[in-house]
This record gives sequence, structure tokens and C-alpha cells, in this order.
Amino acid sequence: MSYVVRPWALRDLKDVMRLIREGATFHKALDQVKTTPEALREDGFGTDPKFGCLVAEVPPDQRSKDDVPFSLPLTLVSPGHTIVGYQFHYFRYCTWTGRIIFGEDLYVMPEFRGKGIGTSLLSQVAKLMLAHGCKQFRFMSANWNHPATALYEKLGAVDVTARDNWVIWHIEGQAVQEMAQQATQ
Amino acid sequence: MSYVVRPWALRDLKDVMRLIREGATFHKALDQVKTTPEALREDGFGTDPKFGCLVAEVPPDQRSKDDVPFSLPLTLVSPGHTIVGYQFHYFRYCTWTGRIIFGEDLYVMPEFRGKGIGTSLLSQVAKLMLAHGCKQFRFMSANWNHPATALYEKLGAVDVTARDNWVIWHIEGQAVQEMAQQATQ
Repeated sequence: MSYVVRPWALRDLKDVMRLIREGATFHKALDQVKTTPEALREDGFGTDPKFGCLVAEVPPDQRSKDDVPFSLPLTLVSPGHTIVGYQFHYFRYCTWTGRIIFGEDLYVMPEFRGKGIGTSLLSQVAKLMLAHGCKQFRFMSANWNHPATALYEKLGAVDVTARDNWVIWHIEGQAVQEMAQQATQ
Repeated sequence: MSYVVRPWALRDLKDVMRLIREGATFHKALDQVKTTPEALREDGFGTDPKFGCLVAEVPPDQRSKDDVPFSLPLTLVSPGHTIVGYQFHYFRYCTWTGRIIFGEDLYVMPEFRGKGIGTSLLSQVAKLMLAHGCKQFRFMSANWNHPATALYEKLGAVDVTARDNWVIWHIEGQAVQEMAQQATQ
């Protein structure tokens, strides 16, 4: 199994969107995916990209074995995919620690797991951190995702949820509108 | 009690650093504060600020009642402070939701709590969200901070830690160095 890890390019937009949706399906949250390739293009490229993305790519002869939909003529679609994993991140700022990188997503297609691709993606993020003077890599995972937990612990990650008693909150939709109206000025 | 909420300026650096340290003390984590006013200045101002900060300011005649250290001549220090709260945030990007704002810190000095200052700070963040097309305000709090929890629930915040089984991980120090060396290329 050979692969390369590289920063994404415009041609990877559809593949990354496909993997985002695969990852959300794994989390039983596909209905929460509101992003589109167009939105990712607008916010991820240009003069002020709002995030970075790394992709793992295998050679064409090692591409995934995904079935082609029966109704599509084979000449119209290439069966399988060569972009088999991605890592999505951005810079953040902690008032205690300073510059940090937050890892939003890490995903590798099931048939390509166990080959070090996830570790390679994270390793490239660590290089980015060192290049940008970031003191911490912060990310979240689901507590039922045991293979991911094992990998993170092997990499030296510390679970701070329990240690620091954190609760994660979301405010969305109408509540944001109402919040905006509560300003006293 | 009158106050204004406004974006921070260079002259607020020392006050915000003071409040960051007060907030960390409240979290029994003052030893984790590695940032300095110089670092905040470098990363928070200029052409590419890495974060935003709002401050709550009271008029001089309503400033805090902090004691002046006994050994300092009164002519050298102004007793008390007029910057009594802050909210620290940055833009983030969720692969499911799109643009969001993350609230890193919200802090109001004890003697100024219960006067709506926290709500006003958050309200200004909500206005920023609407102006920048952000779909979600995400933040963390400590599960033992019951007054804060009550405020967040009143504002319509949803606790997703338990709902989505999230674990928050940190990787720091030597582990980052080792991670960077694991790249296969």
C-alpha cells in the first residue's frame, strides 16, 4: 500500500465532500451535514482560507473498491476513488496556551484503515504546528470510537473532558437571533 | 450601573491579561496561563488578527473596588479597574455546519455579575455571527459552574457533550515532536 499525504487542491473538493459525508454517516449524523462543495470552495480557497485540509491519496491501481451504481455506464464513471482519507483543521487561539491547531475531522475509508494513513495525516498536522509555533493540538472524538481512542492515546493525547469537567455547548438558529436582540446598546 | 461593550483596543491589553488570569484562577488553572500581553498584542492586532475580543467597560466613578497593594504609592497606580469583563472568540469552520464562532472565554469580575454584562457581551457576539453568516456559537464551560450553566440554558444553549458522546483531547509538548516525526514521507 503506497499513498501520499498532501494539502488539498480544488480538484479534491468533491472527494473531500464525499468523505465528510461518509464520516458523518459513521457518526449517524448525515442529516446534520449542511455544507456543500461550493461552500467549501468559497471558504477554503482564496486569499483568506478559513481552514486547511490534508488528503491521503493512493495510486489509481490501488483505488477503493466502491461499487459503481448499476444504472451508470462504466464509461461515464471511474469506479472507486483514489482520495481515501482527509484531515481538516484550523488555527485557534487559547487565552492560556496561545496559538493552537484544532483538528475538526480525521477520516480514513474503512478498507484503508490500519495502514498508518491516519497517523501520517496527523503527523503532517504536527509539522504544521511546529512551523507555526502552535503549542497544542486539540480535537474531539466520540467516546464509542474505540479504535480512534486507542490511536490518540498511543500518540500521547490526554482526555481533558473529565479531567477539566468540560461541557460543550451549541447555540443555533432562532436562539442566535434572540441573543443578538438582547444587547443593551 | 452603566457600561459599554466594545471591541478591545491596544490600551486594553493589560486589562484583558488581568481578566484572563482572574478567569484561570477561578478555574484553578492559573499555572496553565503561558500567554503574555506581548503575545496577545502580536496575535490579536495587525493585518491578520487570530482572534477577536470584546470588553465591558464601566465609567471611572463606578470602577472596581480592588485594593491597591499597600507598598505602592497611590500616585503610581489608579485603584480599581474600569474594564470589568471580556469575551474572547474566533471564527471556526465545521465540516457539517460551515462557518461558526467559537467562544473561548467569557468572564465578568465578581462584583459586576448579575447586571446583564455577560449577556451583553454574548449578544454582541451574536451580532457578529449574523454579520458573518455564522450558523453556530460553540463554547465550553465547566460543569461545576452552575450560574454560567443557568445563563447558557436561558440563552437556548444545548449541551452536546453527552448528547453526542464527545471526548476532548489535547496533544502537547514532546508528543507533538514525536507525532511530527512519524510522517512516512
